[in-house]
Amino acid sequence: MLIAYDQLLSFTNAIFQAIGCPDSDARTAATALLSADLRGIDSHGVARLIGYVRLQEAGRANPRPNVRIIHETPSTAVVDGDSGLGLVVAPFAMQVAIEKAEKVGTGWVSVQNSNHFGIAGYHALKAVEKEMIGIAMTNASALVAPTFSVERLLGTNPICVAVPAGEEPPFVADLATTTAANGKLEILQRTGKPAPLGWIQDKDGNPSTNPHELKTGGALLPLGGDRDHGSHKGYALGAVVDILSAVLSGANYGPWVPPFPAYVPMPTGMPGKGIGHFFGAMRVDAFRPAADFKQHMDNWIRRFRCATPAPGHEKVLIPGDPEREMEAERLSQGIPLLPAVVEDLQSLAKKLNVEFPS
Amino acid sequence: MLIAYDQLLSFTNAIFQAIGCPDSDARTAATALLSADLRGIDSHGVARLIGYVRLQEAGRANPRPNVRIIHETPSTAVVDGDSGLGLVVAPFAMQVAIEKAEKVGTGWVSVQNSNHFGIAGYHALKAVEKEMIGIAMTNASALVAPTFSVERLLGTNPICVAVPAGEEPPFVADLATTTAANGKLEILQRTGKPAPLGWIQDKDGNPSTNPHELKTGGALLPLGGDRDHGSHKGYALGAVVDILSAVLSGANYGPWVPPFPAYVPMPTGMPGKGIGHFFGAMRVDAFRPAADFKQHMDNWIRRFRCATPAPGHEKVLIPGDPEREMEAERLSQGIPLLPAVVEDLQSLAKKLNVEFPS
Repeated sequence: MLIAYDQLLSFTNAIFQAIGCPDSDARTAATALLSADLRGIDSHGVARLIGYVRLQEAGRANPRPNVRIIHETPSTAVVDGDSGLGLVVAPFAMQVAIEKAEKVGTGWVSVQNSNHFGIAGYHALKAVEKEMIGIAMTNASALVAPTFSVERLLGTNPICVAVPAGEEPPFVADLATTTAANGKLEILQRTGKPAPLGWIQDKDGNPSTNPHELKTGGALLPLGGDRDHGSHKGYALGAVVDILSAVLSGANYGPWVPPFPAYVPMPTGMPGKGIGHFFGAMRVDAFRPAADFKQHMDNWIRRFRCATPAPGHEKVLIPGDPEREMEAERLSQGIPLLPAVVEDLQSLAKKLNVEFPS
Repeated sequence: MLIAYDQLLSFTNAIFQAIGCPDSDARTAATALLSADLRGIDSHGVARLIGYVRLQEAGRANPRPNVRIIHETPSTAVVDGDSGLGLVVAPFAMQVAIEKAEKVGTGWVSVQNSNHFGIAGYHALKAVEKEMIGIAMTNASALVAPTFSVERLLGTNPICVAVPAGEEPPFVADLATTTAANGKLEILQRTGKPAPLGWIQDKDGNPSTNPHELKTGGALLPLGGDRDHGSHKGYALGAVVDILSAVLSGANYGPWVPPFPAYVPMPTGMPGKGIGHFFGAMRVDAFRPAADFKQHMDNWIRRFRCATPAPGHEKVLIPGDPEREMEAERLSQGIPLLPAVVEDLQSLAKKLNVEFPS
């Protein structure tokens, strides 16, 4: 099923209103959530709407949070999300980072007591609109085993760095710190195809190609896959995200990060509050005149875009290219929804008395 | 040959003095350079001393630079290294970042017109001494092909994030954004062993295990190795380092970064000055009380350190563990030097009339 973006946005907005979000928060959350569908990261978009509703029903997400700064300096802040939806808390925190950058050059905000925030790229790009470099990261519940371990201690912990250019579109590096994001594994689960070696291990730490391995104690692997191919680097990067997002803010970290599915029990002995995020905004003109920066960024992008491709490949991509092309296509042609997702949305519509577009 | 750290430091200091560095700069450079040998990153330590001397002889490194801030805001600066040794320029820039963090919570410094700075970890750890999170990165001459390309457009572009703890030693993630650092390839070249698949490609973009491939147009591969294993993520991370270090500062980027070996011709059409670095310092108490942060950082480290190891592995490591253990060992037992390195150092000693310890 193909559905127009505007229709899906109105529907998602209405669902968030129906679970008790104030109007402006509902709009913020719906826009942030659907940015994933627009950019082709279907695993993090409207397919998760029912998951957010269940978090609210389970009392794990607060539809009317008092999101606030609990500590700050001229260039930093810690934000308490008051158990709100990350889709609402994260835009607040990114705005704080941007306002600090306007005053002192850069702004850095660590967030506690939040929930999942959708895709990192949406938040980082908010800074790009203001001629700033935007940085966004979040921790997530533990699915990833550190190098040499059989225990799941880290989330897929994504990092996004988004950089404005001049005539060229922005550079957007948006990546899970694992070999493959969980969403890619979900696709293999649905299609019954094996995963490449290096994505997952079984419960005993052996390499596996079974995409269902996580259901029986297996784990995703850090970017690199194994030690010979640099998995200790992916582990270190995922750890940095965890520390900046949660140890710095007072959120939960490592194996104590609350799970997204509301039916999964909360970890015991949690050392912090909710899940954590980290945001940064750096004004490019805090370093050099914006016009100079943009001219050189255009030059960077054009040089890489015209790099000689390897045989069998058409061109070299700039980070952010595939998502931007997808966004243009889906804005004009609509967003494709899998039958299972449509069923979920129809059941939500019925339960919450919201009309689902047909 | 084993040589005591203090002896090697005095010798290295004398060499830098002999090529015209002021006394305090020589000491700074020698200490930064040998931190690589202490931490076991032999490819970046005293083995490169002759390379730094040759850069100075070729007029590419200025032994008496006027290193200075050319632009700043309360939380940012751009430093012009005046073609100085990165081993001198980087400590200056990191100190600027630390001083800004003392005043406004964080400090961020991008550097142009520099040369190679040794290992990123040394600089990032300077912030840790002040109860700050330290960040250091640098670009380097192009050896790495972006995903889908046969052209070398990025350096091994390392990132270090160093985090203070309480009773535990600091967390230090220090990683090249490639599958394997160039130093590891050099070891295989010397021993004649093949490289694992995923480290390098040949000039046509085919996977290769020949560690000499770079001499005939091959390239190192971004962390991930190939597209299925996330090489687009390693490419994106290396690109972020290049942009923050050079597009932000006015240094050279991409294929235009000057080479370390003085005999390699400079690239043509260079868009900036020298090579670029990027440094950050974040006071932990700009986010939460330092005692709270350190207690939770200790908790983080202890939880990961006691993770269940996979069969065949003794324990799970915390990023920074191997280098710190190596440092303790080499401080007490001395630094091992390969015969080829000893020969280089002896020839330097003779030419510059400095006594080499025997």
